[in-house]
Amino acid sequence: ARPRVGYFYSGKSFNRVLAEKIHSAMVSKIKSVPIVVSEKCSVYDAVVTMFIEDVGTLFVVREGGLLEGVISRKDLLKITLGGQDIHKLPVGVIMTRMPKVITVELEDSVWLAAYKMIVHEVDALPVIRKITTEKEQEGYEVVGRISKTNIVRFFVELGEGS
Amino acid sequence: ARPRVGYFYSGKSFNRVLAEKIHSAMVSKIKSVPIVVSEKCSVYDAVVTMFIEDVGTLFVVREGGLLEGVISRKDLLKITLGGQDIHKLPVGVIMTRMPKVITVELEDSVWLAAYKMIVHEVDALPVIRKITTEKEQEGYEVVGRISKTNIVRFFVELGEGS
Repeated sequence: ARPRVGYFYSGKSFNRVLAEKIHSAMVSKIKSVPIVVSEKCSVYDAVVTMFIEDVGTLFVVREGGLLEGVISRKDLLKITLGGQDIHKLPVGVIMTRMPKVITVELEDSVWLAAYKMIVHEVDALPVIRKITTEKEQEGYEVVGRISKTNIVRFFVELGEGS
Repeated sequence: ARPRVGYFYSGKSFNRVLAEKIHSAMVSKIKSVPIVVSEKCSVYDAVVTMFIEDVGTLFVVREGGLLEGVISRKDLLKITLGGQDIHKLPVGVIMTRMPKVITVELEDSVWLAAYKMIVHEVDALPVIRKITTEKEQEGYEVVGRISKTNIVRFFVELGEGS
């Protein structure tokens, strides 16, 4: 065991110890509450929900809370250019649909979540848990949300030395 | 001076050393190129510019490149709800105007930039430099852009132990 203060042995570079510290934090520690809508929700209502809930990404679920898709502020802004009636257009038409959605699980590291956001160029990920429904269907329940904002806040806290 | 590997003296907790490491990186190291428009640019053209340049925040500048305001994806999405003609509405009407814009300078720490984004709830900051124009006016030249994406990418790199 390494003493908390004074000399400590690393046996590796400081950067390596730092990297391990960063990898040890789990998604479950910093996740937020997921904001969900149904596939039939209009684009207009989705935009309103984003503003009311103050999030940049909504998760689309079907009955039972199973993940069907994801819709971002960017997706919604793009559709407003097209001149379509956003009161009638359902989000199901423009969302990113499973299995193309990038996800993480509760026990994944915060680092992995950050890595996936950078590699796949998305602002937030649903935190999911695999479940089997009463009808014996397999699916993914949405149990949280992790966004770039969560990562930046975690980074700020690391820098506070707390 | 602390040896690179093996034992090293901290005289403080590991978390404190980690915090100092985080504070030592500067904005100039990780900033991106700023994407700018003029105050007369239409909301429609601003949205198109965001998609072409693949950014979530535009900086509004006047002749000479002096910062006048900032416009975010969120600002643009909000205006689309109002049913106004986005081809005619100029971004100058809806932007956040100086001196209310939250900014950083080249020599500020990455940590400070992250802290400002969390406290002021913005996704990106203009990196500025104070200048005096030929007409003896003081102003702020936009020399970069730092976003939550830059912070998340920096965090990913820290975790790679590089």
